[in-house]
Amino acid sequence: LMNRICIALDAMGGDHSPRCVLGGADLALQDDTNLYFHIFGNKEQILPLWQSTQRLRHFSEIHHTDEVITPELKPAQALLGFKKSSMRLAIACVAAGEAQAVISGGNTGAYVALSKVLLKMITNIDRPVLPALMPSIKGTTVLLDVGANLNCDAENLVQFAIMGECFARILLQKESPSIGLLNIGSEESKGHPALHEAAQMLKKMPNLNFYGFIEGSDITLGTVDVVVTDGFSGNLVLKAIEGSAHFFAQLLRDALGSSLRGRLGYKMAAPAFTKIKEQIDPRHHNGTLFLGLKGLAVKSHGGTDAVGFANAIQVAASMVQKNLVSSIEERQIAREAIPQ
Amino acid sequence: LMNRICIALDAMGGDHSPRCVLGGADLALQDDTNLYFHIFGNKEQILPLWQSTQRLRHFSEIHHTDEVITPELKPAQALLGFKKSSMRLAIACVAAGEAQAVISGGNTGAYVALSKVLLKMITNIDRPVLPALMPSIKGTTVLLDVGANLNCDAENLVQFAIMGECFARILLQKESPSIGLLNIGSEESKGHPALHEAAQMLKKMPNLNFYGFIEGSDITLGTVDVVVTDGFSGNLVLKAIEGSAHFFAQLLRDALGSSLRGRLGYKMAAPAFTKIKEQIDPRHHNGTLFLGLKGLAVKSHGGTDAVGFANAIQVAASMVQKNLVSSIEERQIAREAIPQ
Repeated sequence: LMNRICIALDAMGGDHSPRCVLGGADLALQDDTNLYFHIFGNKEQILPLWQSTQRLRHFSEIHHTDEVITPELKPAQALLGFKKSSMRLAIACVAAGEAQAVISGGNTGAYVALSKVLLKMITNIDRPVLPALMPSIKGTTVLLDVGANLNCDAENLVQFAIMGECFARILLQKESPSIGLLNIGSEESKGHPALHEAAQMLKKMPNLNFYGFIEGSDITLGTVDVVVTDGFSGNLVLKAIEGSAHFFAQLLRDALGSSLRGRLGYKMAAPAFTKIKEQIDPRHHNGTLFLGLKGLAVKSHGGTDAVGFANAIQVAASMVQKNLVSSIEERQIAREAIPQ
Repeated sequence: LMNRICIALDAMGGDHSPRCVLGGADLALQDDTNLYFHIFGNKEQILPLWQSTQRLRHFSEIHHTDEVITPELKPAQALLGFKKSSMRLAIACVAAGEAQAVISGGNTGAYVALSKVLLKMITNIDRPVLPALMPSIKGTTVLLDVGANLNCDAENLVQFAIMGECFARILLQKESPSIGLLNIGSEESKGHPALHEAAQMLKKMPNLNFYGFIEGSDITLGTVDVVVTDGFSGNLVLKAIEGSAHFFAQLLRDALGSSLRGRLGYKMAAPAFTKIKEQIDPRHHNGTLFLGLKGLAVKSHGGTDAVGFANAIQVAASMVQKNLVSSIEERQIAREAIPQ
């Protein structure tokens, strides 16, 4: 039991809860019986699913609550009321040391606000930051911030880079992931002053694999492992790339479906198309977390299914095992020891 | 001769000049013998190409010059020296009233700086803005600014919207193109204050089909005809979408090429893939122009070929015919007549 990884699950967050949460936990246990879950939510809805799988019954317990944080709720409302919501109780479980990570697919704004209050920020990290995992030609690119940090100064961007590097080291299993700053050109004179200042600071940093400025096209090309940007730009490019995926899928469907030759060709090459779908399947890129907190709060996509939720559990487990929070803390301490 | 459209061509701008310029002019004359070209550049390089096509010889004249604006040149250098560069002379040809539009595929920074000085800004328009033509599910979306306007206030964005609408009305042949402001959510509270202010101003504007805020994914989905944003964000999303196109093409090549079934399926469906290539062929989206100037300065992509350059000529000709500059001027005058 000593090496067991305990994870608190908000069973009520996300579109397909609690089904996808329970199903995901069950799937994760297929691969790793070293996990144990504290499941928070409405017992009436959870029990039928929970009782149907012996594995899950052995490696989890249910903590009943009626209260739920709905998607429309503002962060301030979630902070002030809803003291017994499944999301809050699951986060509190980590704060109390009874679990090593929490996972929720619920209201992102409420989740980050509650996590910030209950888990606290790492010393000298100013804001929590949310990375996205993007499929790229090289595999996966970490893009951050895609959360709500609108205006970022050079110091914020440098902190994002440090946290992104620690996250990517574990997630991508790379010794020294490369870091790029998103800009509108690779020349040093391009873009906002905060970017120039951040680039100067990152360049001087020892043991950091800083690539320099990269452009929007480099995200899916996989030029670097970690793309650093402010939350406004990060959200725009993330959505632009998601929109492109829909656009190309639609083009393919229209073109291949509009003729007999197209339909036959599609049928012939079906395994190839299945392979592509798997490569860009968002479920395999599900599970990111608020970086900068003293505890691990993993965000699952609200629309994911059991397979996607199981992936988020794997992300949480590997961050626990490789001690993400300590590695960020150590990076920040090492940074302060160096004369700037 | 009275209705003839005269266009000044910088024969030396772009990677494949003067070949793609002369070839493009010749192609354009196939469809429209109402055109006449003033060709600026090195006569030695131009003459062999020019003499090989009778059509072009009849409907153009060459103005020799040795000087060329190279891609590396800074705008300030281009403004101060190079008084006899092909780019400058071509723009001056419009300023002198001898041509109604100029086209160059050369150095963008130098081109906008020279155009601003020689052609002047429209009254009460603060900055030239560069739109990009993006393929979308609905056909084409105009995205602006993708030029170099880093920091934009609400008034800048409103001007971009007005100019983008006038441009799209001609380009997309729509009576009242829809306008969207690029943001990180459709809720009114999301994003930077300048966006909220611009949205309020655009909402109040009569005869403007203002949709509201849109997100990055809406660009290729074609939710609106014109996407308005600052030059930093515009460049990021433009490049992110370009990168995605490369990414998906690579995925398809890898998946279809890696098995016999894939290769056979590809062969079978080849016409469908050709159709897709045509739909997203950047040559068919080539030819944008600096909006806000008193003259028409069309920017051709530096890497395009004769087909793409011919497309830029068609864009220039339609902007001349439909009188883009006047329509922007009228829009601005109408706006000032309305109490804000």
